[in-house]
Amino acid sequence: MQILNRNTGLYTDHYELGMAQGYFQSGMRDMPAVFDYFFRNNPYEGGYVVFAGLEDLLDMLENYRFDKDDCDHLEQIGFDREFLGFLKDFRFEADVYSVMEGEVVFPYEPCVRVEGNIIETQLIETLLLNILNFESLIATKAARIRQVAGDRMLMDFGLRRAHGLGGIHASRAAIAGGFDKTSNVYSAFHFGLESAGTMAHSWVQSFEDEYTAFRTFANIFPENCILLADTYDTLKSGFPNAIKVGKEMERTGKQLFGIRLDSGDLAYLSKKGREMLDSEGLDYVKIVASNQLDEYVIKSLMEQSAPIDVFGVGTALVTGMGAGALDGVYKLCQINGKQTLKISDNITKITLPGKKSSYRFRDDKGMFTADGIALDEETDFDIIHHPFEAGKSSNISGCKQEQLIHKVMNKGRKESGKKSPGKISEYAQSRLQFLPGEQKRFMNPHIYKVGISSQLLELRQKMTGKAIHK
Amino acid sequence: MQILNRNTGLYTDHYELGMAQGYFQSGMRDMPAVFDYFFRNNPYEGGYVVFAGLEDLLDMLENYRFDKDDCDHLEQIGFDREFLGFLKDFRFEADVYSVMEGEVVFPYEPCVRVEGNIIETQLIETLLLNILNFESLIATKAARIRQVAGDRMLMDFGLRRAHGLGGIHASRAAIAGGFDKTSNVYSAFHFGLESAGTMAHSWVQSFEDEYTAFRTFANIFPENCILLADTYDTLKSGFPNAIKVGKEMERTGKQLFGIRLDSGDLAYLSKKGREMLDSEGLDYVKIVASNQLDEYVIKSLMEQSAPIDVFGVGTALVTGMGAGALDGVYKLCQINGKQTLKISDNITKITLPGKKSSYRFRDDKGMFTADGIALDEETDFDIIHHPFEAGKSSNISGCKQEQLIHKVMNKGRKESGKKSPGKISEYAQSRLQFLPGEQKRFMNPHIYKVGISSQLLELRQKMTGKAIHK
Repeated sequence: MQILNRNTGLYTDHYELGMAQGYFQSGMRDMPAVFDYFFRNNPYEGGYVVFAGLEDLLDMLENYRFDKDDCDHLEQIGFDREFLGFLKDFRFEADVYSVMEGEVVFPYEPCVRVEGNIIETQLIETLLLNILNFESLIATKAARIRQVAGDRMLMDFGLRRAHGLGGIHASRAAIAGGFDKTSNVYSAFHFGLESAGTMAHSWVQSFEDEYTAFRTFANIFPENCILLADTYDTLKSGFPNAIKVGKEMERTGKQLFGIRLDSGDLAYLSKKGREMLDSEGLDYVKIVASNQLDEYVIKSLMEQSAPIDVFGVGTALVTGMGAGALDGVYKLCQINGKQTLKISDNITKITLPGKKSSYRFRDDKGMFTADGIALDEETDFDIIHHPFEAGKSSNISGCKQEQLIHKVMNKGRKESGKKSPGKISEYAQSRLQFLPGEQKRFMNPHIYKVGISSQLLELRQKMTGKAIHK
Repeated sequence: MQILNRNTGLYTDHYELGMAQGYFQSGMRDMPAVFDYFFRNNPYEGGYVVFAGLEDLLDMLENYRFDKDDCDHLEQIGFDREFLGFLKDFRFEADVYSVMEGEVVFPYEPCVRVEGNIIETQLIETLLLNILNFESLIATKAARIRQVAGDRMLMDFGLRRAHGLGGIHASRAAIAGGFDKTSNVYSAFHFGLESAGTMAHSWVQSFEDEYTAFRTFANIFPENCILLADTYDTLKSGFPNAIKVGKEMERTGKQLFGIRLDSGDLAYLSKKGREMLDSEGLDYVKIVASNQLDEYVIKSLMEQSAPIDVFGVGTALVTGMGAGALDGVYKLCQINGKQTLKISDNITKITLPGKKSSYRFRDDKGMFTADGIALDEETDFDIIHHPFEAGKSSNISGCKQEQLIHKVMNKGRKESGKKSPGKISEYAQSRLQFLPGEQKRFMNPHIYKVGISSQLLELRQKMTGKAIHK
């Protein structure tokens, strides 16, 4: 099921279409090309990224089309008719190799490799970056929040502050990264997520008093009823009224699910509220907290042993607060069978040439030790080199080697079935447990080693020298 | 033309639907309600917000529907059948009052007021916040960039780093806030914007050498041809090759449009490049710069007199870098004819009760002096009070008074025709010129006065006291 009402052909940067026409008119339309997707910096000053968005990207690539309206528009703004005739029947038929959704990945390693003709591989650059950069950003934020929240329930409350329609994929990525539920009903419907919600202050204000508002809500929603306690005064009015309704529910054999705090000092209020609930025998009623939460506030609340059972996180989660964007790029590494690279004064911006794969090296306990990037034809290597600092290398010969990149799309068709965001989350957690704590901590995390093979190092050196002297 | 492939009924938070069912089952479906939209903080530590997104919101409200699939889904997750029967025929038929798109607005003043029954006004909360918060965030960023860029051309290059499908409205808001063109072809088509683009490094890498890549591109696109200079070495290779092609174009009666810098020190490279171009008689060739630009970098480049004609701005623009979200909220101010408010320990979070309008006071030169919030029945007032600090007030009796809020939707139908993003931008600029410089500066801007009328102050005091002692 498509999300947009139109084909995604035009969902691209103008220059992709310009270059596509250029390749077409230069007789290069069948020229084979290989592009890599990778990023250069971990967001949030963190130590890792949880890769997400692949399934959505592949869906959009399978349906990447230009219809008559699209072509008419392009003709109007000056594109060539013959090229537009070609676009009208265009299908994305390239091969895509990728790490799994939910994989823990690191700067500079190729996460996705696209192999096809230069036109199709070029045209999809913007779409690919748009989806993967964003979902990975949000899944990573979600994973960081999960990291500090232990087994508490996490709810995405972000749609109202999400970046417009970006809210649709934000909620999916939140679940893929470790959240349990979302307030976003649209995304819940589209992606098969569990949606949930409580009440707003306006509900409480719409009744003559808070007690009546609570009682009415509890009568209508006796299951999973969560009452919002801070419209007038959390401890003097909200909790007493909620407790009164909770006791009434008991008399009809029901249980109040929770009470929500949405302002004030959440540590203080949750402790006081918990005492009030427990002293009335309502020890099963959960405390739900929201209001400008992020991984740092939740970490602090957990350290203070705040008795909060459910955290609702909005803005910080869905906007990737603290980063705003993952800086992923999509770079040509091979054209017409020839390895290629982009030069820069800054060695960290020189790209890695040739068709490559990413590997993970794990110690005897399974812990992630280092990742390596090697040319596709290499199978075994014992040493990885620091990608930028000359002379630095690591011996990884004792480690177990895993290939991270697998074929996920064959000639434009997806290779395997859909994996639900919940399954992606499970996979992410199963991988994150093998990432050492030093690389997961928030403050100055230890940098995870990502090295390149000897052959790749040599190739880059040779090609850089040649390009500069050209 | 709708953007999404499905109705937007489900594009809401779960709790809006829960409350809607609650109102329905409590016999409150026809109860009249009034909500205000306002925000509490200017983003970017700036002094103003450019309001945007209204037209998109109204379009979505006119088409706000639940179809059979939506209702089936809601039934599956436990919503009531009778309520879903009501939802199936639901239409948004409320009245909407709003400031104009492009208006310069400030914290706490109502920008939008929605009047209808409690169900329709509640249901659309999430959608309204999602669109207005985001587009206003981006339009404001665009206006800040325009503020420092003078009359240089500004291009939105952000789609690849935008928050997924949020990129669609990001480009519209960028133009509404002051940008000239966008790379985003989808949004250009949808909103009638001008799209444009250059070339990527992959184009240059796809030819045997840079000169051939440039020459080929110039042959295919002799109009508006922009060559990317930094694939190998900007000054030693990129500019010399581009100049060679520019001279060749002259021989066929054409002119090279521009050369793009995408890395390195843009001040230094643009000056050196400008000299090289001028010494070859190519003084008409423009210099285009991109690479992690924002209002601060562009301000610095302008102060250094960098000869850059066109700025391409991506990530910082479309993600609202430095803010991430506008904190707009939607609060019930009147229910069943009775004024209402939400209490908080923090006076800045106590809402303003009653049906209100926002006014602007201008001095004899037309400069914006202060804004005032008053109850809808008040027409003239001479004094405005600080909304939170007791005893502080301003006399605005000598000022010209403008009402900021006008009816834009009558019983769910838009009152007036579409205004293009370009027109919105013109309006924003025509308003910003009357905002004093102190309120526009980036560093600790002077806070623009927004006050409340004496009647409103009194009403809030009375109601706060009553609610606390209830």
